[in-house]
Amino acid sequence: MKGRIEKLAEIKKNKPVDIFLLTSPASLKYLAGYFYNFETGPSPFHLLPAALIVGDRSNLLIADNETHQLPAIEASVSVETYESYTFEKAVDSNNQFLFHLHKILNQYTAGKTRIGIEQNFLPLVIAQSLLTKYRDIELIDITSELVLLRAIKDADEIELIEKAANLSDVGQAAVLKYAKEGMTELELFSKVRLDMETIAGTRVPMMTDLVSGNRTATGGGNPTNKAIEMNDLILCDLTPCLHGYWGDSCNTMVAGKPTAEQKKIFSLVKEALEMGINTIRPGVKAMEVDEIMRSHLKAEGNFGHHGGHGVGLFYHEEPRIVPYNTMTLEPGMVIALEPAVYKEDYGIRLEHLMLVTEHGSEVLTKFNHCFQQG
Amino acid sequence: MKGRIEKLAEIKKNKPVDIFLLTSPASLKYLAGYFYNFETGPSPFHLLPAALIVGDRSNLLIADNETHQLPAIEASVSVETYESYTFEKAVDSNNQFLFHLHKILNQYTAGKTRIGIEQNFLPLVIAQSLLTKYRDIELIDITSELVLLRAIKDADEIELIEKAANLSDVGQAAVLKYAKEGMTELELFSKVRLDMETIAGTRVPMMTDLVSGNRTATGGGNPTNKAIEMNDLILCDLTPCLHGYWGDSCNTMVAGKPTAEQKKIFSLVKEALEMGINTIRPGVKAMEVDEIMRSHLKAEGNFGHHGGHGVGLFYHEEPRIVPYNTMTLEPGMVIALEPAVYKEDYGIRLEHLMLVTEHGSEVLTKFNHCFQQG
Repeated sequence: MKGRIEKLAEIKKNKPVDIFLLTSPASLKYLAGYFYNFETGPSPFHLLPAALIVGDRSNLLIADNETHQLPAIEASVSVETYESYTFEKAVDSNNQFLFHLHKILNQYTAGKTRIGIEQNFLPLVIAQSLLTKYRDIELIDITSELVLLRAIKDADEIELIEKAANLSDVGQAAVLKYAKEGMTELELFSKVRLDMETIAGTRVPMMTDLVSGNRTATGGGNPTNKAIEMNDLILCDLTPCLHGYWGDSCNTMVAGKPTAEQKKIFSLVKEALEMGINTIRPGVKAMEVDEIMRSHLKAEGNFGHHGGHGVGLFYHEEPRIVPYNTMTLEPGMVIALEPAVYKEDYGIRLEHLMLVTEHGSEVLTKFNHCFQQG
Repeated sequence: MKGRIEKLAEIKKNKPVDIFLLTSPASLKYLAGYFYNFETGPSPFHLLPAALIVGDRSNLLIADNETHQLPAIEASVSVETYESYTFEKAVDSNNQFLFHLHKILNQYTAGKTRIGIEQNFLPLVIAQSLLTKYRDIELIDITSELVLLRAIKDADEIELIEKAANLSDVGQAAVLKYAKEGMTELELFSKVRLDMETIAGTRVPMMTDLVSGNRTATGGGNPTNKAIEMNDLILCDLTPCLHGYWGDSCNTMVAGKPTAEQKKIFSLVKEALEMGINTIRPGVKAMEVDEIMRSHLKAEGNFGHHGGHGVGLFYHEEPRIVPYNTMTLEPGMVIALEPAVYKEDYGIRLEHLMLVTEHGSEVLTKFNHCFQQG
């Protein structure tokens, strides 16, 4: 991670930035190792869980009620807390945050100071306070530079993504193991999630499509009380987040016996996925990977969504595997491919997560796409 | 909800505001009926899921990929979508959002215009774009006014909170039913959550403390792979969010037989909770409710957190039931009370959710706090 803070200097080559004030969850994890669980929405206890200030030194300013389960913070980063909420006295969390932020920024703002920020993740109250307090500062958005930096993963990031991919494997194995006629989608999901959370040893934020029967034709949705019926297809896309990094995977199986057409389509989608995987290597354009999968499935209609996407600190990021993306693949990129065919009354989507290596790719999700149980 | 948009006019009496631009999840639900699931963190597909602009008319500007499961939007609000992401062409979601926002705001910004905003929930990119495009606007924070408005619930809100409270009841019943020696905390949580999600018919964002044995002394934490041991206490605080409104509840039970001291402490905490409940009526100060519970438990040490808190579109809001809060209770407030005693090696916390009525209170969570099973 220390290396990553140093990578910020690369941004300075293209944009006139002196120091950085970073507030997105992705940047906090990427640069400082700080992750907080976002599953319950915005906290009523503070302005921000944390902010990272990088100048000559690096400071992570954390709300004091977020420090009880603090992950390992990058060693070169000084951690400072601000008061957020206590039952003992009224605390103005905004003022506390700004007080500490100013104290940290004071050491950098003697002259003209250009601060690299993330314009979508900097609340107005912070920007306003800086522009009022410091006469000669400029706020410069560096979102797109960070997106490009983050697209190439470091070894420690790949390790974390592999762990998230392993959760996906566990989940997909659980779907095959537990799915049966009469069980509701929510009951199946409950078993799948328990197996995944048991491996993780904790709750796991998770995006999930788990649909059965006709609803597979729509490509996804959350599990419901619908019971799985004999010969229903079950489409399950599991996207778990482990300590900030995401995994991704999708399988479609049948609870019972598939039709001959369904078997044919499953094989066709599997071929498309394999063709996509075999196309991945440094120097190939993202659009070429999309094209090879999409054209293989063309006779069955366009599947109507991307062929894939980058995965890391967001479940969807660059390189987007879409017909218009001229971005060139590079070693260290992590990509999910998810070709599909959707018919009138069913759909089949198959997805693997992979790493672009020096000479090709390595599939990070290790499960096999199985259409039938047993 | 129409009434609530009209309530915004009350804010104008205290603050010089002409129109409103609201971007917090709470305000979107409160005023327009719009709720999106936040469980998977910030979306990589757009700047904001939605924004609400209120002038003579009301416009809800929603990202097009958030409209597939659109809840019932307040009838007086015009819904407009902006392009966020598609596999077919590159879309600049920020520009799309700002283009539509400007179009809506153009009708209000002929002269000097004061826009009521939420300073913690307005990303810099939006504020900057407005201040650049419109010469004579002023952004005025109305967060504290919204907090006070939201503290008194309308009938339709109380109905939604009752449904969330019912989920808590189902969950607490499940803990009593399923908890047993040898089961891990995560296994128990899985069964509890499934019962709750089955009642809801969908996934339910949920804050949870589910701890057993010694860890009850800390007051909470997420469930882990720790197995429940014979005579372990199990503390379970279930805080589910149903369509934007939260429920809350806590019970502590024993898997086996409690000690005589534990039984005494359970009764004492239950008495404190009942005393708190009986204190709640219009005209009483929040701090008085805290005081009566805290002093009843004083001989066992201060429990070290608030006596309770308001609940609604946040799981914690005004009125905060803390020693320093002079706020007066009013009919329509919804309050969770959660007195506790924490000892060296165990803790007991009991919580109910209640509504302040004309002459007292009504308990919205209907489960009984049981210390032993069967």
